Amino acid sequence: MKLLGPIPPYFSSINGILEISGEVSEALVARAGSSPLFIYSAEIIRQRVASLRAAMPSSIGLHYAVKANPFLPLIHVMSELVDGFDIASAGELANLLGAGIDPRKVSFAGPGKRDAELEAAITAGVTLNLESEAEADRALAIAERLSRTPRLAIRVNPSFDLKGSGMKMGGGAKPFGLDEDRVPPLARRIVASGAEWRGYHIFAGSQAISAEAIIETQRQTLELAARLGRESGVPVPHVNLGGGFGIPYFPGDTPLDLPAVGAALGDRMASLPEELAKTEFCIELGRYLVGEAGVYLTRVIERKESHGEVFLIVDGGMHHQLAASGNFGTVVRRNYPVAIATRFDAPVEEEASVVGCLCTPLDRLADKAGFPRAEAGDLVAVFCAGAYGATASPMHFLGHGPAAEILV
Amino acid sequence: MKLLGPIPPYFSSINGILEISGEVSEALVARAGSSPLFIYSAEIIRQRVASLRAAMPSSIGLHYAVKANPFLPLIHVMSELVDGFDIASAGELANLLGAGIDPRKVSFAGPGKRDAELEAAITAGVTLNLESEAEADRALAIAERLSRTPRLAIRVNPSFDLKGSGMKMGGGAKPFGLDEDRVPPLARRIVASGAEWRGYHIFAGSQAISAEAIIETQRQTLELAARLGRESGVPVPHVNLGGGFGIPYFPGDTPLDLPAVGAALGDRMASLPEELAKTEFCIELGRYLVGEAGVYLTRVIERKESHGEVFLIVDGGMHHQLAASGNFGTVVRRNYPVAIATRFDAPVEEEASVVGCLCTPLDRLADKAGFPRAEAGDLVAVFCAGAYGATASPMHFLGHGPAAEILV
Repeated sequence: MKLLGPIPPYFSSINGILEISGEVSEALVARAGSSPLFIYSAEIIRQRVASLRAAMPSSIGLHYAVKANPFLPLIHVMSELVDGFDIASAGELANLLGAGIDPRKVSFAGPGKRDAELEAAITAGVTLNLESEAEADRALAIAERLSRTPRLAIRVNPSFDLKGSGMKMGGGAKPFGLDEDRVPPLARRIVASGAEWRGYHIFAGSQAISAEAIIETQRQTLELAARLGRESGVPVPHVNLGGGFGIPYFPGDTPLDLPAVGAALGDRMASLPEELAKTEFCIELGRYLVGEAGVYLTRVIERKESHGEVFLIVDGGMHHQLAASGNFGTVVRRNYPVAIATRFDAPVEEEASVVGCLCTPLDRLADKAGFPRAEAGDLVAVFCAGAYGATASPMHFLGHGPAAEILV
Repeated sequence: MKLLGPIPPYFSSINGILEISGEVSEALVARAGSSPLFIYSAEIIRQRVASLRAAMPSSIGLHYAVKANPFLPLIHVMSELVDGFDIASAGELANLLGAGIDPRKVSFAGPGKRDAELEAAITAGVTLNLESEAEADRALAIAERLSRTPRLAIRVNPSFDLKGSGMKMGGGAKPFGLDEDRVPPLARRIVASGAEWRGYHIFAGSQAISAEAIIETQRQTLELAARLGRESGVPVPHVNLGGGFGIPYFPGDTPLDLPAVGAALGDRMASLPEELAKTEFCIELGRYLVGEAGVYLTRVIERKESHGEVFLIVDGGMHHQLAASGNFGTVVRRNYPVAIATRFDAPVEEEASVVGCLCTPLDRLADKAGFPRAEAGDLVAVFCAGAYGATASPMHFLGHGPAAEILV
C-alpha cells in the first residue's frame, strides 16, 4: 500500500463528512451545481496571510503571484490582504485591471514578453521586471513612442539557486533575468534614461519546504542586492526577494518552519548594509498563499475491481488536476493528499486507486493507497488543489470541459 | 549537444523556408493572423490514410480516435476518409453530431461514463464500448427508460499488453474494460437483453513503433476475440482490434513498418477461425493518422545568452505543446523534432535551447540542440504536433491563451 500526502491542517468533518469553511462537501457540490469542482476557502487564505504577517518582519511587503491561481473572486479576496501582485502575461494584467487592482501595485516578469505586452504594461503603469538588455531596449523604445515614463526593474539571474526547491530559477545558464555581471551597466542605463527605476527582482527557485534553504537563499539574495547596488552606483529603491516557500504535497513532507524564516529575515533587516538602508523589500508568494486553501472534489462514478485491484473511477481527473496525476514537472509519481470526503472519519479498509474519467492510463489521482471502502456516489477530495490546478491542467483534453470553481 | 527527433518526411522548403502543403511558414502565420499556431495538413492526412489503406487488408475498417485531435475542420476531412469515429466523452459526441457525422459510425469508450453521457450516446444511436458490468446495468436501464435499443459492445481488458508501447492499456489490473473471464457472461446478458450486440473492443496499448510488437498484439487480439466468441456462445458481429501504431518522436525512433503489419494481418484475415468468419473488423488510430500532419509554429521573441548558453525565447510554449516540453507522460525528457522554420535549409551553427514564454523552467521545447543561428523574428517549427497538442496542453496556464489552429 502506498502512502498519501499529508492533508493540510485546515479541514475537519461534520457528521463524518469533510467540511470546508463550515460547509460539508455535498452542500458545496450542490452550490456549484455539479461535480467536479474546485473550492477555494477565503478563510484559509486569510489565515495563511495572517500567519505570514505575524512571522515576517513588518517591513517586508507581501506580493501574490497570480499564476498560482487567477480565479477572479480569489483575486478580490487577495486584494484586501497583500501589498502587490506579480503577473506573467498581458492576459493576467487584463484580469487584474478588470478586477480594479491598482496597476502601481503590479509587477510583470516573464522571459518572453511580446511588444504588445510591454505596451500594455507601460500604458497601465505596471512595473516591468526586465529579463534582458534587449527587452530593456524594446521597453524604452515603446515608452518613448507612448510618451510614458516606464517603471522598470531588473530581474537578476542569481549565481546561486534555492537548495531543495521544486523548480530552480537560478544557478547557471537560465532564460530568466540577467546574469549578475550584466546587471550594473543596465541599471545605470535605466536610471540615465529617465525611467522610474524600481530596483531588482531576484527569484532563485520555488517550492522549498526547508527553512534552512530559504534562509540561506534570502541571505544570498540580500548580499547580491547590496553588491549590485554598490557596483551599479545607483540607489536600490526596491528588491523583490522572490518566494520559494513550499507546501507539503507528498508522504514525508513537513510544513515550512515559517517562524524560523521570519526570525532570520528579521535579523537581517535589522542590520542591512548601507546600500539597502532605504530599500523597500517584498516577498512574492503564490502556492504558499493559496495551495492549501483549495480542494478538488470529484464524485465516484463507479467502484470497479480488476484482477483483485480496486479502482474508484471518478468524474474528474488529470484534465483538472494534472499535477496530482504526476504528469506535471515530476519525475517519480507520488500520491497527493487524497481522501474520501463523504467518509472522512472512517478508518482505512482497503487499498484502492482513484482514477479519472479520461480514457488514458495517465489519469490516476491516487495510486494503491489506503481508503475506507467507497462506493459509486461517494465524493473524493484531492487536497493542495488551490495552486497550479485548474489553469495548469489540460481542461479541454478528451472534451469533458472545465471544472466548476467556487470561493467560499 | 543533444539530438533532435526526426522530422517527418512530408516537409520541404521554398527559398529556404519551411513549407507545409505548398505554403511557406510566414504565409501561414499571416493567414492565422498571429503566432503561435497549429497547422494541420489535409494533404498529409490523406497520404497517411492512403498508405494505410494500401497496406492493410481491405476487410479492415479504419476508425479515427477523436481524442488525438478534435479540431472540427480536421474532423470534416476525416469524415471523407475513415469508416468510423471513436470518442471518449459526451463533449466529443456533441462535436461529431454538430459536424454531421453519422452516429452509427461512432463508438464511445471511457472508464468513467456518467449517466448523462450514456443517455446522450444511446439517444444518438452511438455504440457504447461497455467498461464494466455496472456500466452495462446503467446503460440498459437508461435505454429502457428512453425506450431505445442500445448498441452495445464490450471493452475487454486483455491479459496481454502491447510490448514497447508508450501507454499500456492491458496486461493486469486496469480501470479499462472487463477482465477476460468476466466477458462471456456479460456478452450473453447483453444479447439476451434485446440490445443490438456489437461485439468487442480490445485495446492493448498505444504508441508502439515496432511492427513485431503490433503484429504479435494483433495475433493475440484475434485469438482472444475468437476465444470470447467460443466461450460466450454468442456471435461476434464486430471487433475493434485497437490501434497502437506509433510515430517517431525522439532521436533514434524509426517509422513503423506498415507493410509488414498489413501483410501479417492479411495472412490472419485469410485464415480466421470459425467464430470470426462473419465478423467485421476495424482498427482505431488517432496519433498515427494526424500526429505527423501537424506543425506548431512559434516566433522567436528574443535570442538570449546566459553563462555562454543560447536561449531562443519563443511566443509559444508548453501551454500549447505540453508533450514537447517533456511534461506529459514521459519520464526522461527528450527532444521532439524541432527546426528553425525560416532557416530550414541552413546548416547547424550552434547549440541552443528553445524555451517558451512561460515564466517557469518547465517550459522548454528543445534542449541544447543544434540549430542554425536564429534571431528574434525567426519562426520555430515543432513537428509531430498534430496529435495530443492543443487540447492536451494547459492552454490557460499563465494567461497567454490558446494558439490559433488552421487546416490547410
